Amino acid sequence: MVLADQLRISLDGKWRNVREQSRRELDGFGLLADPSLSMDEARDRTLEQMKLLVPTGIPAAGFRMEHGGSGDPGMAVTGIEMLAQFDLSLMVKAGVQWGLFGGAIENLGTNRHHESLIPSLINLDLLGCFAMTETGHGSDVQNLETTATYDIESEEFVIHSPTPSSRKDYIGGAARHATTAAVFAQLFTKGEGHGVHCFVVPIRDSRGNDMPGVTTSDCGYKGGLAGVDNGRIMFDEVRIPRDNLLNRYGDVAEDGTYTSPIDNPNRRFFTMLGTLVRGRVSVGGSASAATQVALSIAGRYAVERKQFSAGDGDEVVIMDYRMHQRRLLPLIARSYAYQFAQNQLVARMHKLQTADEPDPHQQRELEGRAAGLKAVQTAHATRAIQECREACGGAGYLAENRLTTLKGDSDVFTTFEGDNHVLLQLVAKELLTSYAEDVSGLDPLGMVRFVAETVTDVVKERTAAAQLIQRLIDARPGDSDSGTSLLDRGTQLSLFEDREQHVLETAARRLQRAAKDKDKAFEIFNNAQDHVVKAGKVHIDRVVLEAFTAGIARCEDPEAQALLRDVCDLYALSIIEEDKAWFMEHRRLTTTRSKAVTNEVNNLLEKLRPYTLILIEGFAIPENSLGATMLKG
Amino acid sequence: MVLADQLRISLDGKWRNVREQSRRELDGFGLLADPSLSMDEARDRTLEQMKLLVPTGIPAAGFRMEHGGSGDPGMAVTGIEMLAQFDLSLMVKAGVQWGLFGGAIENLGTNRHHESLIPSLINLDLLGCFAMTETGHGSDVQNLETTATYDIESEEFVIHSPTPSSRKDYIGGAARHATTAAVFAQLFTKGEGHGVHCFVVPIRDSRGNDMPGVTTSDCGYKGGLAGVDNGRIMFDEVRIPRDNLLNRYGDVAEDGTYTSPIDNPNRRFFTMLGTLVRGRVSVGGSASAATQVALSIAGRYAVERKQFSAGDGDEVVIMDYRMHQRRLLPLIARSYAYQFAQNQLVARMHKLQTADEPDPHQQRELEGRAAGLKAVQTAHATRAIQECREACGGAGYLAENRLTTLKGDSDVFTTFEGDNHVLLQLVAKELLTSYAEDVSGLDPLGMVRFVAETVTDVVKERTAAAQLIQRLIDARPGDSDSGTSLLDRGTQLSLFEDREQHVLETAARRLQRAAKDKDKAFEIFNNAQDHVVKAGKVHIDRVVLEAFTAGIARCEDPEAQALLRDVCDLYALSIIEEDKAWFMEHRRLTTTRSKAVTNEVNNLLEKLRPYTLILIEGFAIPENSLGATMLKG
Repeated sequence: MVLADQLRISLDGKWRNVREQSRRELDGFGLLADPSLSMDEARDRTLEQMKLLVPTGIPAAGFRMEHGGSGDPGMAVTGIEMLAQFDLSLMVKAGVQWGLFGGAIENLGTNRHHESLIPSLINLDLLGCFAMTETGHGSDVQNLETTATYDIESEEFVIHSPTPSSRKDYIGGAARHATTAAVFAQLFTKGEGHGVHCFVVPIRDSRGNDMPGVTTSDCGYKGGLAGVDNGRIMFDEVRIPRDNLLNRYGDVAEDGTYTSPIDNPNRRFFTMLGTLVRGRVSVGGSASAATQVALSIAGRYAVERKQFSAGDGDEVVIMDYRMHQRRLLPLIARSYAYQFAQNQLVARMHKLQTADEPDPHQQRELEGRAAGLKAVQTAHATRAIQECREACGGAGYLAENRLTTLKGDSDVFTTFEGDNHVLLQLVAKELLTSYAEDVSGLDPLGMVRFVAETVTDVVKERTAAAQLIQRLIDARPGDSDSGTSLLDRGTQLSLFEDREQHVLETAARRLQRAAKDKDKAFEIFNNAQDHVVKAGKVHIDRVVLEAFTAGIARCEDPEAQALLRDVCDLYALSIIEEDKAWFMEHRRLTTTRSKAVTNEVNNLLEKLRPYTLILIEGFAIPENSLGATMLKG
Repeated sequence: MVLADQLRISLDGKWRNVREQSRRELDGFGLLADPSLSMDEARDRTLEQMKLLVPTGIPAAGFRMEHGGSGDPGMAVTGIEMLAQFDLSLMVKAGVQWGLFGGAIENLGTNRHHESLIPSLINLDLLGCFAMTETGHGSDVQNLETTATYDIESEEFVIHSPTPSSRKDYIGGAARHATTAAVFAQLFTKGEGHGVHCFVVPIRDSRGNDMPGVTTSDCGYKGGLAGVDNGRIMFDEVRIPRDNLLNRYGDVAEDGTYTSPIDNPNRRFFTMLGTLVRGRVSVGGSASAATQVALSIAGRYAVERKQFSAGDGDEVVIMDYRMHQRRLLPLIARSYAYQFAQNQLVARMHKLQTADEPDPHQQRELEGRAAGLKAVQTAHATRAIQECREACGGAGYLAENRLTTLKGDSDVFTTFEGDNHVLLQLVAKELLTSYAEDVSGLDPLGMVRFVAETVTDVVKERTAAAQLIQRLIDARPGDSDSGTSLLDRGTQLSLFEDREQHVLETAARRLQRAAKDKDKAFEIFNNAQDHVVKAGKVHIDRVVLEAFTAGIARCEDPEAQALLRDVCDLYALSIIEEDKAWFMEHRRLTTTRSKAVTNEVNNLLEKLRPYTLILIEGFAIPENSLGATMLKG
């Protein structure tokens, strides 16, 4: 088997069959975006494309067998991720229907909802949307303003938008296609509030007209995702039956009595949110898939395109220029790294979501990782796709070469399913509070109060191939200024781990001060905010390096394994290089050794340059998905 | 006068009257892009908008009085820059017509061209395009493939595209509106080649059909600039009269004899290109103008939008978060810095282009700065507009809030008028060869041979307020680890200058090795390529800091001056912070002092936070240009 195939097998991970099926089937569907369509045409086309997906079995995979699905969450998110290789509008619209709307019914509802809704939402007889975000509250969803007030007389909930800022906003599907919304609203009964719950609310009749009391409107043109009909919804005292409350985590009896299996309202809300983790997992994976497409296009262009003579008359292939290698190869290495981390995340998610008694600690850890990996993968997508566009010059700016569409479509990924800065704080919060169950809010000060006395144990708590990692760290050579030891995996792992521990511990100390000085608590927290975000980031860097290391160990082909080792070195050293000021300031690298990091990165670029195409082929992007005119010359 | 007005006056610079006129007149024209238009509608609308500009006098400013213009190059580029505050398609299409096409006629042509073409191109009776770039050659324009072969018999030039890669590509205006092209082609006469020259070639008849032998086609949808009709042109033995050669720098007599006032073909070509410097000046300035619009939108949103409670129940304005200040304030500071540098550049360009005998050394220096400032301003635009989009969350992704349009439209600015990486190498080359006249090519090895023995003098050759700068450097306090000395302008200037000198000198030494070892010359050059690019970048950083310093000295209002000093500190320290690994590695900063840089940046953020709106008001973006729906709530 050729080298690229071995790489592909390593990257494909556990749901390889889903990936192979998707490559085979989706490639024939003609899914690439058509920039000449009007807004409505693009949206309708995307809906038509969704219908092609139903027979693939991917939509059904996300639902339990007893509800009419096939009970394979890993397949569900891998399938969504594969859509992202073709068209991100389709990925998002499918993600909204089956992942978010379907996921809300599946995870927050009970039998009565599963039976009546899931089969028809799988086969698209029922089109739904996920009405969580409001104009006034995106990141802070716990403070949504929409109300759902129980009326004992009629045994109905009254859904209402009390203020302009309570308008549901950016809701995919709300502008045109969705007939039903999963609406998040503050539940009130008997004059008492019980926090945010989710309700099934019909918003359009079969002819597409707004239901009485519902006013939908259109978000119009966006920076991309032309095929997604994002819209807004206002509710004016809209009445729905009591049964439309998705009542798994909180219920209201006919007489208005509220009950819940979780007493703490904070924990209840975040438990509900936690069941929807699949959204973040999908967005991170999809961002990575789109990035791999962009890198495949720009990388192929870079090995074909020539510019300027080397002095002997022949023009130089642009990939032979150091600057071009610097632009693309570290990004390719990072995409490899994130794919290994994503595969590990999906496997854990699958295990937890198919377990009879999921471990709550592992669930929280999963949520933290999903948030962090979503943040780094989408940030990587934004940066890498931009770099790919620029690396293809004027050709990169033409829609026919796909990069601008990938850029525009993926741009909002850093924002939706959680703003990246907020998510990295969430990661840090989980670490700093040792996944304490009661610290669920995103409220910064709430978090400050729970900061653990020591965070060392959290860092040590490795889950991926723990023994292997520890063995590598233990076996690392002594530091030397020559730089060769920088290529030792144990050295890299130790640098990453040490950085994480230091950043976390110092962040914890700063926040502990805030807990003690309540008057200045916000000020102290705020001054440390960039520090806290960095804590989340460096934790994820370490998780990713460990996942890459574990992935290499699993690779059975020696040649592929050797190549993956170099790619992993480039990932690790380019992360260290970007943060080398920190390593020097904290005396983890001498200035000489810091310079050696850059030298070793350059050596790796030279070493990996001949493998550019093979590395790209490892991503195994289907031919039609590459569809860039400039590559067909 | 209020503080914001004082800032505006400082930023407006010498062509304040043009800016004020533009703000007044353009704001009423309804120029903002309409995303609902089809491609052809958008293009036709932009052409209609150009007609509104003719009476403003801005188009005529770029041409000499004796040709029917008003002879005010400073006004011409300032006017284009102001268009960029409204719509970048309009800016580009206007820039193509009056700047590039008009500029080619004006600067490369002689009387016969001026008389017959300039009045009609000013008033849009004649629509032109600038056909330089080819599919195969964008950066390396000296090696264009299109040929212009003189035919003695008929006294005509035969314009021909000999290969697929010789196709003219991405040419603004070529797809739809332009009837005439300024075509760059290799001139051959009597069997001998004389390098690239420019020819006036009719490409469409009055009914819009391609002229015989000409085949135009459409580049179609792009990542932005919907109003610009970029297209392609192939020439099949197209005959034009001998007179259509723009013959200022090279002429062919009836009998086919070639003559030129510049013997060296290399120097001739780059002298011709040098006359077109206005294009790069305009693109850099326009990128900055668009960035200021984006920062004004995101900054205003940041002081209105609230999210999460500070613990006391009240929600926090997002601009009060440290992370948000980190995102936006250093970018605002950088936009201030670049505006001062841009104003200085425009003033120098104006002076040179209106001088009777322009100094060739100063001309080369101008070209270097224009290239460098274009590179940093467009890179800043790409980064800052992206950050603004993300800083506005989901609202930032809606077209109605303008940021995505600004992003898509400005995206290609890092590419056109010279790829930024190539331009920064050009800057370095000029410095490394002390502006030697004969080293005009972009060919890396050509450059290596001319690297000067010492480059110190180049760094010392200050032009902006030289005495003031030297006085500040001489008066700087001794270094201390406390950080306060980092706020001293002399210290900052000295750090910038010292870094430039070191990077240049070490780059020169590496390249001198390449000159001595011809077999490995390309390898040595290539290994140093990132070093060379850095040399260009740090030079421009220093030029910008000096321009900012000079601008502050010119500000007459004490309060505005004090505020500008803080903004300049933030600019200087955030540049140092980004490169602090270099400063530590080269022992220009201790690790303690390096940490102090970050502390001082954070202190400046706190200090400048209350001035966010005032700083934005200093950009003085007209109300309609801000046109973001989210700000009207």
